[in-house]
Amino acid sequence: MAKGADTRNRILKKTRKLIVKKGFNNTSISDIITATGVKKGNLYYYYASKNELGLAVLKDAEQEFFDLLSASFKGEKPLEKLWNSCAAILKAQQKANFVGGCLFGNTALEMSGGNEEYAEIIREVFRKWTALLADHLRQAVSAGDLAQVHSPESLAKMIVAVIEGGIMMSRVSKRKTDLEDCLQTLRAILAR
Amino acid sequence: MAKGADTRNRILKKTRKLIVKKGFNNTSISDIITATGVKKGNLYYYYASKNELGLAVLKDAEQEFFDLLSASFKGEKPLEKLWNSCAAILKAQQKANFVGGCLFGNTALEMSGGNEEYAEIIREVFRKWTALLADHLRQAVSAGDLAQVHSPESLAKMIVAVIEGGIMMSRVSKRKTDLEDCLQTLRAILAR
Repeated sequence: MAKGADTRNRILKKTRKLIVKKGFNNTSISDIITATGVKKGNLYYYYASKNELGLAVLKDAEQEFFDLLSASFKGEKPLEKLWNSCAAILKAQQKANFVGGCLFGNTALEMSGGNEEYAEIIREVFRKWTALLADHLRQAVSAGDLAQVHSPESLAKMIVAVIEGGIMMSRVSKRKTDLEDCLQTLRAILAR
Repeated sequence: MAKGADTRNRILKKTRKLIVKKGFNNTSISDIITATGVKKGNLYYYYASKNELGLAVLKDAEQEFFDLLSASFKGEKPLEKLWNSCAAILKAQQKANFVGGCLFGNTALEMSGGNEEYAEIIREVFRKWTALLADHLRQAVSAGDLAQVHSPESLAKMIVAVIEGGIMMSRVSKRKTDLEDCLQTLRAILAR
Protein backbone atom coordinates (compact mmCIF):
# COMPACT_ATOMS: atom_id res chain seq x y z
CA MET A 1 0.00 0.00 0.00
CA ALA A 2 2.66 2.50 1.10
CA LYS A 3 4.84 1.64 -1.88
CA GLY A 4 1.91 2.04 -4.26
CA ALA A 5 1.12 5.48 -2.82
CA ASP A 6 4.79 6.45 -3.15
CA THR A 7 4.92 5.41 -6.78
CA ARG A 8 1.66 7.17 -7.53
CA ASN A 9 2.98 10.34 -5.89
CA ARG A 10 6.29 10.14 -7.79
CA ILE A 11 4.42 9.75 -11.08
CA LEU A 12 2.20 12.77 -10.29
CA LYS A 13 5.03 15.08 -9.23
CA LYS A 14 7.45 14.18 -12.04
CA THR A 15 4.71 14.38 -14.67
CA ARG A 16 3.64 17.77 -13.33
CA LYS A 17 7.19 19.04 -13.80
CA LEU A 18 7.19 17.84 -17.39
CA ILE A 19 3.79 19.38 -18.14
CA VAL A 20 4.79 22.71 -16.57
CA LYS A 21 7.95 22.74 -18.67
CA LYS A 22 6.73 21.37 -22.00
CA GLY A 23 2.95 21.60 -21.93
CA PHE A 24 0.55 18.66 -21.84
CA ASN A 25 0.51 17.88 -25.55
CA ASN A 26 4.29 17.89 -25.87
CA THR A 27 4.79 15.56 -22.94
CA SER A 28 4.94 12.00 -24.25
CA ILE A 29 4.43 8.74 -22.40
CA SER A 30 8.09 7.95 -23.04
CA ASP A 31 9.09 11.29 -21.42
CA ILE A 32 7.05 10.26 -18.39
CA ILE A 33 8.61 6.80 -18.27
CA THR A 34 12.12 8.31 -18.43
CA ALA A 35 11.40 10.92 -15.77
CA THR A 36 9.65 8.62 -13.31
CA GLY A 37 11.67 5.43 -13.87
CA VAL A 38 8.37 3.53 -13.84
CA LYS A 39 7.88 0.82 -16.45
CA LYS A 40 5.20 1.32 -19.06
CA GLY A 41 2.98 -1.52 -17.84
CA ASN A 42 3.28 -0.24 -14.30
CA LEU A 43 2.42 3.31 -15.36
CA TYR A 44 -0.75 2.06 -17.08
CA TYR A 45 -1.57 0.06 -13.96
CA TYR A 46 -1.84 3.34 -12.03
CA TYR A 47 -3.29 5.51 -14.78
CA ALA A 48 -5.21 3.97 -17.66
CA SER A 49 -4.35 6.77 -20.12
CA LYS A 50 -2.35 9.96 -20.54
CA ASN A 51 -5.60 11.87 -20.22
CA GLU A 52 -6.39 10.22 -16.89
CA LEU A 53 -2.86 10.91 -15.63
CA GLY A 54 -3.16 14.55 -16.72
CA LEU A 55 -6.40 14.93 -14.77
CA ALA A 56 -4.82 13.36 -11.68
CA VAL A 57 -1.82 15.75 -11.99
CA LEU A 58 -4.18 18.74 -12.12
CA LYS A 59 -6.19 17.52 -9.11
CA ASP A 60 -3.00 16.88 -7.13
CA ALA A 61 -1.72 20.38 -7.99
CA GLU A 62 -5.11 21.85 -7.04
CA GLN A 63 -4.90 20.20 -3.62
CA GLU A 64 -1.35 21.46 -3.12
CA PHE A 65 -2.28 24.98 -4.22
CA PHE A 66 -5.18 25.27 -1.78
CA ASP A 67 -3.02 23.83 1.00
CA LEU A 68 -0.46 26.56 0.24
CA LEU A 69 -3.19 29.20 0.23
CA SER A 70 -4.73 28.01 3.52
CA ALA A 71 -1.33 27.99 5.18
CA SER A 72 -0.52 31.48 3.88
CA PHE A 73 -3.69 33.32 5.00
CA LYS A 74 -1.83 34.43 8.10
CA GLY A 75 -1.92 37.71 9.99
CA GLU A 76 -4.13 39.68 12.31
CA LYS A 77 -6.28 41.48 9.79
CA PRO A 78 -8.15 40.09 6.77
CA LEU A 79 -6.34 42.33 4.28
CA GLU A 80 -2.96 41.34 5.73
CA LYS A 81 -3.95 37.68 5.32
CA LEU A 82 -4.92 38.31 1.72
CA TRP A 83 -1.61 40.02 0.86
CA ASN A 84 0.30 37.26 2.61
CA SER A 85 -1.41 34.71 0.39
CA CYS A 86 -0.39 36.72 -2.70
CA ALA A 87 3.18 36.95 -1.33
CA ALA A 88 3.25 33.17 -0.91
CA ILE A 89 2.37 32.72 -4.58
CA LEU A 90 5.07 35.22 -5.59
CA LYS A 91 7.56 33.33 -3.44
CA ALA A 92 6.62 29.97 -4.94
CA GLN A 93 6.99 31.35 -8.47
CA GLN A 94 10.30 32.92 -7.56
CA LYS A 95 11.55 29.64 -6.12
CA ALA A 96 10.89 28.09 -9.55
CA ASN A 97 12.71 31.06 -11.18
CA PHE A 98 9.48 31.83 -13.01
CA VAL A 99 10.16 28.84 -15.23
CA GLY A 100 6.92 27.13 -16.12
CA GLY A 101 4.60 29.73 -14.62
CA CYS A 102 1.21 28.67 -13.32
CA LEU A 103 0.12 25.12 -14.19
CA PHE A 104 -3.55 26.14 -14.09
CA GLY A 105 -3.01 29.20 -16.28
CA ASN A 106 -0.94 27.21 -18.75
CA THR A 107 -3.46 24.41 -18.91
CA ALA A 108 -6.26 26.95 -19.23
CA LEU A 109 -4.62 28.21 -22.40
CA GLU A 110 -3.43 24.89 -23.77
CA MET A 111 -6.31 22.55 -23.00
CA SER A 112 -9.50 24.32 -22.06
CA GLY A 113 -10.63 24.87 -25.63
CA GLY A 114 -10.71 21.18 -26.41
CA ASN A 115 -10.97 19.21 -23.19
CA GLU A 116 -14.02 19.88 -21.03
CA GLU A 117 -12.77 17.78 -18.08
CA TYR A 118 -9.59 19.87 -17.86
CA ALA A 119 -11.50 23.12 -18.29
CA GLU A 120 -13.83 22.18 -15.42
CA ILE A 121 -10.92 21.66 -12.99
CA ILE A 122 -9.37 25.01 -13.97
CA ARG A 123 -12.71 26.79 -13.62
CA GLU A 124 -13.08 25.20 -10.17
CA VAL A 125 -9.59 26.41 -9.13
CA PHE A 126 -10.36 29.98 -10.23
CA ARG A 127 -13.82 29.82 -8.58
CA LYS A 128 -12.56 28.54 -5.20
CA TRP A 129 -9.57 30.90 -5.16
CA THR A 130 -11.81 33.87 -6.05
CA ALA A 131 -14.28 32.90 -3.29
CA LEU A 132 -11.50 32.76 -0.69
CA LEU A 133 -10.19 36.19 -1.68
CA ALA A 134 -13.72 37.66 -1.80
CA ASP A 135 -14.30 36.40 1.73
CA HIS A 136 -11.24 38.24 3.00
CA LEU A 137 -12.22 41.39 1.10
CA ARG A 138 -15.70 41.36 2.64
CA GLN A 139 -14.19 40.97 6.11
CA ALA A 140 -11.78 43.84 5.40
CA VAL A 141 -14.67 46.10 4.37
CA SER A 142 -16.61 45.13 7.53
CA ALA A 143 -13.55 45.85 9.66
CA GLY A 144 -13.17 49.26 8.01
CA ASP A 145 -9.75 48.41 6.55
CA LEU A 146 -10.90 48.62 2.96
CA ALA A 147 -13.13 51.21 1.30
CA GLN A 148 -16.51 49.84 0.27
CA VAL A 149 -16.22 48.06 -3.07
CA HIS A 150 -19.08 47.53 -5.48
CA SER A 151 -18.52 43.78 -5.63
CA PRO A 152 -16.00 41.86 -3.53
CA GLU A 153 -16.37 38.95 -6.00
CA SER A 154 -15.36 41.09 -8.96
CA LEU A 155 -12.44 42.60 -7.08
CA ALA A 156 -11.34 39.10 -6.06
CA LYS A 157 -11.55 38.02 -9.69
CA MET A 158 -9.43 41.01 -10.67
CA ILE A 159 -6.79 40.05 -8.10
CA VAL A 160 -6.64 36.55 -9.60
CA ALA A 161 -6.31 38.13 -13.06
CA VAL A 162 -3.46 40.38 -11.85
CA ILE A 163 -1.62 37.35 -10.45
CA GLU A 164 -2.15 35.19 -13.54
CA GLY A 165 -1.24 38.03 -15.91
CA GLY A 166 1.72 39.03 -13.72
CA ILE A 167 3.05 35.45 -13.69
CA MET A 168 2.77 35.41 -17.48
CA MET A 169 4.75 38.65 -17.78
CA SER A 170 7.41 37.52 -15.30
CA ARG A 171 7.71 34.26 -17.15
CA VAL A 172 8.41 36.05 -20.42
CA SER A 173 10.73 38.66 -18.93
CA LYS A 174 12.31 36.16 -16.51
CA ARG A 175 12.21 38.98 -13.97
CA LYS A 176 10.50 38.75 -10.60
CA THR A 177 9.81 42.45 -10.74
CA ASP A 178 6.84 42.21 -13.16
CA LEU A 179 4.62 40.17 -10.86
CA GLU A 180 6.00 42.04 -7.85
CA ASP A 181 5.26 45.47 -9.37
CA CYS A 182 1.73 44.39 -10.23
CA LEU A 183 1.05 43.22 -6.67
CA GLN A 184 2.61 46.28 -5.04
CA THR A 185 0.61 48.61 -7.26
CA LEU A 186 -2.60 46.75 -6.52
CA ARG A 187 -1.90 46.97 -2.81
CA ALA A 188 -1.15 50.70 -2.99
CA ILE A 189 -4.34 51.42 -4.95
CA LEU A 190 -6.53 49.43 -2.57
CA ALA A 191 -4.98 51.20 0.44
CA ARG A 192 -6.33 54.53 -0.80
CA MET B 1 4.08 41.43 -56.74
CA ALA B 2 0.46 42.01 -55.66
CA LYS B 3 -0.31 38.31 -55.95
CA GLY B 4 2.76 37.42 -53.86
CA ALA B 5 1.69 39.87 -51.15
CA ASP B 6 -1.81 38.39 -51.18
CA THR B 7 -0.50 34.86 -50.80
CA ARG B 8 1.87 35.91 -48.05
CA ASN B 9 -1.00 37.63 -46.22
CA ARG B 10 -3.29 34.61 -46.61
CA ILE B 11 -0.57 32.33 -45.22
CA LEU B 12 -0.04 34.65 -42.22
CA LYS B 13 -3.72 35.06 -41.36
CA LYS B 14 -4.69 31.40 -41.79
CA THR B 15 -1.65 30.19 -39.86
CA ARG B 16 -2.42 32.63 -37.06
CA LYS B 17 -5.92 31.16 -36.77
CA LEU B 18 -4.43 27.68 -36.49
CA ILE B 19 -1.86 28.74 -33.88
CA VAL B 20 -4.49 30.56 -31.80
CA LYS B 21 -6.68 27.47 -31.89
CA LYS B 22 -4.14 24.66 -31.51
CA GLY B 23 -0.94 26.25 -30.28
CA PHE B 24 2.29 26.55 -32.24
CA ASN B 25 3.67 23.08 -31.53
CA ASN B 26 0.45 21.32 -32.46
CA THR B 27 0.11 23.14 -35.75
CA SER B 28 1.73 21.03 -38.46
CA ILE B 29 2.96 22.05 -41.89
CA SER B 30 0.24 19.86 -43.37
CA ASP B 31 -2.42 21.73 -41.31
CA ILE B 32 -1.05 24.95 -42.78
CA ILE B 33 -1.10 23.57 -46.32
CA THR B 34 -4.71 22.43 -45.90
CA ALA B 35 -5.84 25.74 -44.38
CA THR B 36 -4.10 28.01 -46.86
CA GLY B 37 -4.45 25.94 -50.01
CA VAL B 38 -0.83 26.79 -50.79
CA LYS B 39 1.39 23.98 -52.08
CA LYS B 40 4.28 22.84 -49.92
CA GLY B 41 7.00 24.09 -52.27
CA ASN B 42 5.24 27.42 -52.53
CA LEU B 43 4.90 27.71 -48.74
CA TYR B 44 8.64 27.13 -48.33
CA TYR B 45 9.28 29.71 -51.05
CA TYR B 46 7.69 32.34 -48.79
CA TYR B 47 8.87 31.02 -45.42
CA ALA B 48 11.96 28.84 -45.17
CA SER B 49 10.79 27.02 -42.02
CA LYS B 50 7.89 26.66 -39.61
CA ASN B 51 9.91 28.70 -37.12
CA GLU B 52 10.32 31.56 -39.61
CA LEU B 53 6.60 31.45 -40.46
CA GLY B 54 5.74 31.51 -36.73
CA LEU B 55 7.88 34.61 -36.23
CA ALA B 56 6.25 36.32 -39.21
CA VAL B 57 2.79 35.47 -37.81
CA LEU B 58 3.71 37.04 -34.47
CA LYS B 59 5.11 40.16 -36.10
CA ASP B 60 2.03 40.51 -38.29
CA ALA B 61 -0.24 40.12 -35.24
CA GLU B 62 1.88 42.65 -33.35
CA GLN B 63 1.38 45.19 -36.14
CA GLU B 64 -2.36 44.55 -36.19
CA PHE B 65 -2.62 44.81 -32.40
CA PHE B 66 -0.87 48.18 -32.26
CA ASP B 67 -2.97 49.44 -35.17
CA LEU B 68 -6.08 48.44 -33.18
CA LEU B 69 -4.71 50.16 -30.07
CA SER B 70 -3.82 53.37 -31.93
CA ALA B 71 -7.25 53.51 -33.51
CA SER B 72 -8.97 52.92 -30.17
CA PHE B 73 -7.23 55.60 -28.08
CA LYS B 74 -10.15 57.91 -28.79
CA GLY B 75 -11.86 60.42 -26.57
CA GLU B 76 -11.37 63.85 -25.08
CA LYS B 77 -9.46 62.90 -21.96
CA PRO B 78 -6.45 60.62 -21.53
CA LEU B 79 -8.24 58.27 -19.13
CA GLU B 80 -11.21 57.98 -21.47
CA LYS B 81 -8.79 57.09 -24.27
CA LEU B 82 -7.18 54.44 -22.12
CA TRP B 83 -10.50 52.80 -21.20
CA ASN B 84 -11.60 52.93 -24.82
CA SER B 85 -8.49 50.99 -25.78
CA CYS B 86 -9.32 48.36 -23.14
CA ALA B 87 -12.90 48.23 -24.43
CA ALA B 88 -11.60 47.64 -27.95
CA ILE B 89 -9.64 44.62 -26.73
CA LEU B 90 -12.71 43.28 -24.89
CA LYS B 91 -14.75 43.74 -28.06
CA ALA B 92 -12.17 41.93 -30.22
CA GLN B 93 -12.07 39.01 -27.77
CA GLN B 94 -15.84 38.91 -27.64
CA LYS B 95 -16.04 38.87 -31.43
CA ALA B 96 -13.92 35.72 -31.32
CA ASN B 97 -16.23 34.30 -28.60
CA PHE B 98 -13.19 34.13 -26.33
CA VAL B 99 -11.99 31.16 -28.36
CA GLY B 100 -8.23 31.22 -28.65
CA GLY B 101 -7.63 34.10 -26.25
CA CYS B 102 -4.61 36.33 -26.74
CA LEU B 103 -2.02 35.10 -29.26
CA PHE B 104 0.77 36.89 -27.36
CA GLY B 105 -0.29 35.50 -23.99
CA ASN B 106 -0.64 31.99 -25.40
CA THR B 107 2.72 32.15 -27.12
CA ALA B 108 4.26 33.60 -23.96
CA LEU B 109 3.21 30.47 -22.11
CA GLU B 110 3.85 27.96 -24.88
CA MET B 111 7.07 29.17 -26.43
CA SER B 112 8.93 31.71 -24.34
CA GLY B 113 10.68 29.12 -22.19
CA GLY B 114 12.43 27.54 -25.14
CA ASN B 115 12.55 30.01 -28.01
CA GLU B 116 14.35 33.28 -27.38
CA GLU B 117 13.26 34.87 -30.68
CA TYR B 118 9.59 34.35 -29.80
CA ALA B 119 10.11 35.52 -26.24
CA GLU B 120 11.71 38.74 -27.49
CA ILE B 121 8.70 39.62 -29.68
CA ILE B 122 6.30 38.98 -26.78
CA ARG B 123 8.43 41.06 -24.40
CA GLU B 124 8.41 43.85 -26.98
CA VAL B 125 4.60 43.70 -27.29
CA PHE B 126 4.17 43.92 -23.50
CA ARG B 127 6.80 46.70 -23.30
CA LYS B 128 5.27 48.87 -26.04
CA TRP B 129 1.71 48.30 -24.80
CA THR B 130 2.74 49.16 -21.22
CA ALA B 131 4.53 52.32 -22.43
CA LEU B 132 1.43 53.50 -24.30
CA LEU B 133 -0.80 52.98 -21.25
CA ALA B 134 1.76 54.62 -18.93
CA ASP B 135 1.79 57.65 -21.19
CA HIS B 136 -1.97 58.05 -20.90
CA LEU B 137 -1.84 57.53 -17.12
CA ARG B 138 0.81 60.25 -16.77
CA GLN B 139 -1.32 62.63 -18.83
CA ALA B 140 -4.36 61.77 -16.69
CA VAL B 141 -2.43 62.57 -13.50
CA SER B 142 -1.23 65.87 -15.00
CA ALA B 143 -4.79 66.75 -16.00
CA GLY B 144 -6.00 65.99 -12.47
CA ASP B 145 -8.26 63.14 -13.63
CA LEU B 146 -6.34 60.47 -11.77
CA ALA B 147 -4.94 60.52 -8.25
CA GLN B 148 -1.15 60.59 -8.14
CA VAL B 149 0.22 57.07 -8.56
CA HIS B 150 3.60 55.92 -7.34
CA SER B 151 4.62 54.63 -10.74
CA PRO B 152 2.58 55.04 -13.93
CA GLU B 153 4.75 52.28 -15.48
CA SER B 154 3.83 49.77 -12.75
CA LEU B 155 0.16 50.68 -12.94
CA ALA B 156 0.28 50.29 -16.73
CA LYS B 157 1.90 46.87 -16.26
CA MET B 158 -0.87 45.95 -13.84
CA ILE B 159 -3.52 46.93 -16.38
CA VAL B 160 -1.86 44.67 -18.97
CA ALA B 161 -1.81 41.87 -16.36
CA VAL B 162 -5.53 42.40 -15.62
CA ILE B 163 -6.34 42.15 -19.32
CA GLU B 164 -4.16 39.07 -19.94
CA GLY B 165 -5.43 37.34 -16.79
CA GLY B 166 -9.01 38.36 -17.55
CA ILE B 167 -8.79 36.98 -21.09
CA MET B 168 -7.46 33.72 -19.63
CA MET B 169 -10.39 33.50 -17.19
CA SER B 170 -12.97 34.35 -19.86
CA ARG B 171 -11.43 31.79 -22.15
CA VAL B 172 -11.84 29.06 -19.54
CA SER B 173 -15.33 30.12 -18.44
CA LYS B 174 -16.39 31.02 -21.98
CA ARG B 175 -18.12 34.01 -20.41
CA LYS B 176 -17.48 37.62 -21.40
CA THR B 177 -18.29 38.69 -17.87
CA ASP B 178 -14.91 37.64 -16.36
CA LEU B 179 -12.79 40.04 -18.41
CA GLU B 180 -15.58 42.63 -18.27
CA ASP B 181 -15.86 42.44 -14.45
CA CYS B 182 -12.09 42.80 -14.12
CA LEU B 183 -12.03 45.91 -16.30
CA GLN B 184 -15.06 47.51 -14.63
CA THR B 185 -13.61 46.94 -11.18
CA LEU B 186 -10.26 48.36 -12.20
CA ARG B 187 -11.97 51.42 -13.59
CA ALA B 188 -14.06 51.92 -10.44
CA ILE B 189 -11.00 51.60 -8.17
CA LEU B 190 -8.96 54.08 -10.21
CA ALA B 191 -11.85 56.57 -10.19
CA ARG B 192 -11.62 56.82 -6.40
